[in-house]
Amino acid sequence: MRTNRRNFIKSSISTLALAGIPVRFNLISKEHKINFLNDKMKLTYKKYDLRLKHTFTIARSSRDFVPIVLTELNHDGIIGYGESSPNVRYHEDSESVISFFNKLNLSKFNDPFDYVAIFDYVDNLTNGDASAKAAIDIAIYDWLGKKMNVPLYKLWGLDKNKTPYTSFTIGIDKPDIVRKKVEEAEEYKILKIKVGTDSDKEMIDTIRKVTNKPIRVDANEGWKQKEVALERIKWLKDEGVEFIEQPMPASQIDDVKWLRDKIDFPIIADEALTKLEDIPTLASAYDGINIKLQKCNGIHVALKMITLARALNMKIMMGCMIESNVGISAAAHLSPMIDYADLDGNVLINNDPFNGTKIIDGKLVLNDNPGLGVTPI
Amino acid sequence: MRTNRRNFIKSSISTLALAGIPVRFNLISKEHKINFLNDKMKLTYKKYDLRLKHTFTIARSSRDFVPIVLTELNHDGIIGYGESSPNVRYHEDSESVISFFNKLNLSKFNDPFDYVAIFDYVDNLTNGDASAKAAIDIAIYDWLGKKMNVPLYKLWGLDKNKTPYTSFTIGIDKPDIVRKKVEEAEEYKILKIKVGTDSDKEMIDTIRKVTNKPIRVDANEGWKQKEVALERIKWLKDEGVEFIEQPMPASQIDDVKWLRDKIDFPIIADEALTKLEDIPTLASAYDGINIKLQKCNGIHVALKMITLARALNMKIMMGCMIESNVGISAAAHLSPMIDYADLDGNVLINNDPFNGTKIIDGKLVLNDNPGLGVTPI
Repeated sequence: MRTNRRNFIKSSISTLALAGIPVRFNLISKEHKINFLNDKMKLTYKKYDLRLKHTFTIARSSRDFVPIVLTELNHDGIIGYGESSPNVRYHEDSESVISFFNKLNLSKFNDPFDYVAIFDYVDNLTNGDASAKAAIDIAIYDWLGKKMNVPLYKLWGLDKNKTPYTSFTIGIDKPDIVRKKVEEAEEYKILKIKVGTDSDKEMIDTIRKVTNKPIRVDANEGWKQKEVALERIKWLKDEGVEFIEQPMPASQIDDVKWLRDKIDFPIIADEALTKLEDIPTLASAYDGINIKLQKCNGIHVALKMITLARALNMKIMMGCMIESNVGISAAAHLSPMIDYADLDGNVLINNDPFNGTKIIDGKLVLNDNPGLGVTPI
Repeated sequence: MRTNRRNFIKSSISTLALAGIPVRFNLISKEHKINFLNDKMKLTYKKYDLRLKHTFTIARSSRDFVPIVLTELNHDGIIGYGESSPNVRYHEDSESVISFFNKLNLSKFNDPFDYVAIFDYVDNLTNGDASAKAAIDIAIYDWLGKKMNVPLYKLWGLDKNKTPYTSFTIGIDKPDIVRKKVEEAEEYKILKIKVGTDSDKEMIDTIRKVTNKPIRVDANEGWKQKEVALERIKWLKDEGVEFIEQPMPASQIDDVKWLRDKIDFPIIADEALTKLEDIPTLASAYDGINIKLQKCNGIHVALKMITLARALNMKIMMGCMIESNVGISAAAHLSPMIDYADLDGNVLINNDPFNGTKIIDGKLVLNDNPGLGVTPI
C-alpha cells in the first residue's frame, strides 16, 4: 500500500507534469484532491503518513507516525513541491490543513512571481494554520528557484559549504534504549535531548556514560517555577550542555529575563516565538530564537525573522517538525545563515517520499539542482 | 565634450561587453580605470558629472553640478551597472570612491552569486564609503537580475503597478524663481521643500499662493531647540504639510521623542539613520525612516531596513541624492514596498547617461527588462 502510494505520486502526477503534460482531473485518484487556482496555476495536495523509526516522546505526548500533507504548485510547465506537517499544539491536523486549502481562492493571482501579494493574502486569510501556509510558501519558492534555474541557497546569495552540522534528537526512553539510540546516532556531532520531565537526570546520565558529544536541550516549557528552572539549568551547564530551548512557559517572559540575569547560558525562544513582531520583545529575555518553517508560515517569514534577529544581535537556530525531505530542504537552504541547526526531522522516519538534502557525517549537504533540489522517490 | 563622453560609454565599453567581447585594457581611456577582480569577473568605473538644471540650495550648501562614479560589473557575458553619488556630509567625493575601489580585492570571489559574502567583505573593509559600497551592490543586483532574466521588482515578488508617486523637490530660492519651479513641477502630485532656514515662511507662503498640492518637508537637522521645532511643526501642519524629515540634529533623539509626544505629525528619520542597527532605537522617537541607497551601502541593507522598520510598525520613505537613472532605478524597483518616495534625483539633471525608470504624471514607472532595466544613452 505504501509503495503504491509512493509510486502513484511519482508516476501519475509528478512525472507527467514535469514533462510539461497538463495534469488532468481524471488522472487524479480520490485521495489526491485538486484545488484549481486558475487556468494556468494549479495547487494539488495529498495526505501522507510519515512513519517514525522510534516512538517519539516529548514533555506533552508520544507518537508512532505523523500525518503530513504534500503540495504541488503547477505553473508554466514547472512543479514546485511543498509540505505541511501540522502540529496539534497549534490546533492543526491534516484535516485542518486541507480545510485551509479549500478556503483559498488564488484566482486573482496569475503568476507565482506575485509571491509577496500571495503570501500576504494567504497569511491573512485565517489566524493560525501556519503549517498549511508554509506548504504554499515552500511550493512557491521551489517553483521560483526552478523558474530562475537556481538552487534556493544561491538565490539567497549563500555559500552551500557553510551549512551547519545538525543536532540529532534522542527521545526520552529507558536507559538501554537511550544507549542504543546514542550508538545509532554515531554520525551526528551534536545530540539534542528533550528535558523538562522527571527523567531528565536519568537521560543525561545515561548519555554522558557513553559519549562526550555536545548536547543541546529543549525543555518545551517544562519548568513553571523560575527557581526550579535556574537550578536545572545550572546542572545542565555543568553537564556540558550548549544551550537550552524554552525552559519555561512562553507567557513567562519576565521569569526568563530573571533567569538570564542569573546565569550565563544561552536561552533560545521556541514556543515563545509565534510571529515576526514577537522578536523585539523576545530580545529582552532570550539570547536567540528557534525558527521553524511549519510554525512561522514558511520561508518568507523566516527570512524576515533572520534579518530582525540579526539586527537585534540574537542567535538563530532552525528547528523542524517530523517532516519529509521537502520541508527539511527548505530549511537547509536557509541554514548557511544560521548558528544552530536542528534539522533531523526526516532522519527519524523510514518512508521519506522525497530525495534531496542529505546529511553526511552530521552535516547538511545541499545539491545544486534548482529550487529545493528535491525529487519524488 | 559631454556627448563624446556619453558615446564613449556606449560604444567602447558597454556594447562590446554586452556582445560578449572581453573588454581589453587598451580600449579604455585614461578616465576609465579598470579594477581587475579575477579572470572572469571585472569591475570597471568612470567618473561622470551630473549637471543640475537649477542651482540647488539646502540648509548646508549650494551647488551646480554633482560628480558621480559609474560602475560596471562584467561577468559571464553580462554587465551589471552601478552608481556612486558621493556625499560631502559623509566625507565622500569621487576621489574617495575611487580610492575605495582601489582597496578592493575581490579575487577570492568567483561569482556575483556569492553576494552575501561579497557585501560582507565590502561593507567591513572600511568605515564609511557608503556610496562606493552602494555602487558595487547595485551593479551586482543588476547583474543578478539579468542572469536570472527577471526585473528586480519581480525577483523581490513585487507588483510594479504599486510604485508610488514621487515628490519633487523645490529648492530654496527667491519667490519668483520658486513660483517658476512650482509651475515646472506641474506633473508631480507632491512637492518637497527644504526647511530649517530663515526663508521657510517665504517658501511655504509662495508655494501655497500657487498650489494646494501636498507638501513634504525636510529640515535637514535645521532646528536645534525643541521648542522652536515644535512651533515650526505646528505651523507646517496648519499649512497642509504631510510629514517632516529630520527636524532636529540626529544626536538629539530625546528631543525628537519629546516632539512626538507633543504633536500628532509624522516625523521621519533621515540623517539619524546611518545603519541597520539604529532602527530599533529610532522607533522610540520617529514614525518612519528615510532609506537612501547611497547612504546605507545599497540594496542589500535597504532590504533589511525595510523588513526591520515594518516589524517595528514604522513608515518607510526612500530618498536619493542627485543620481543618474541607475541609482534611481535601483530604488524604484524597491518602491512598491514603501510608503513615500522622494526619488526625483535624476529629474533635476539634464545629462542623464542612462535610460530606465520613467516618471509619468509623477508616478515611478518600471520597465520589464531584466535587472535594473537601465541602458546607456
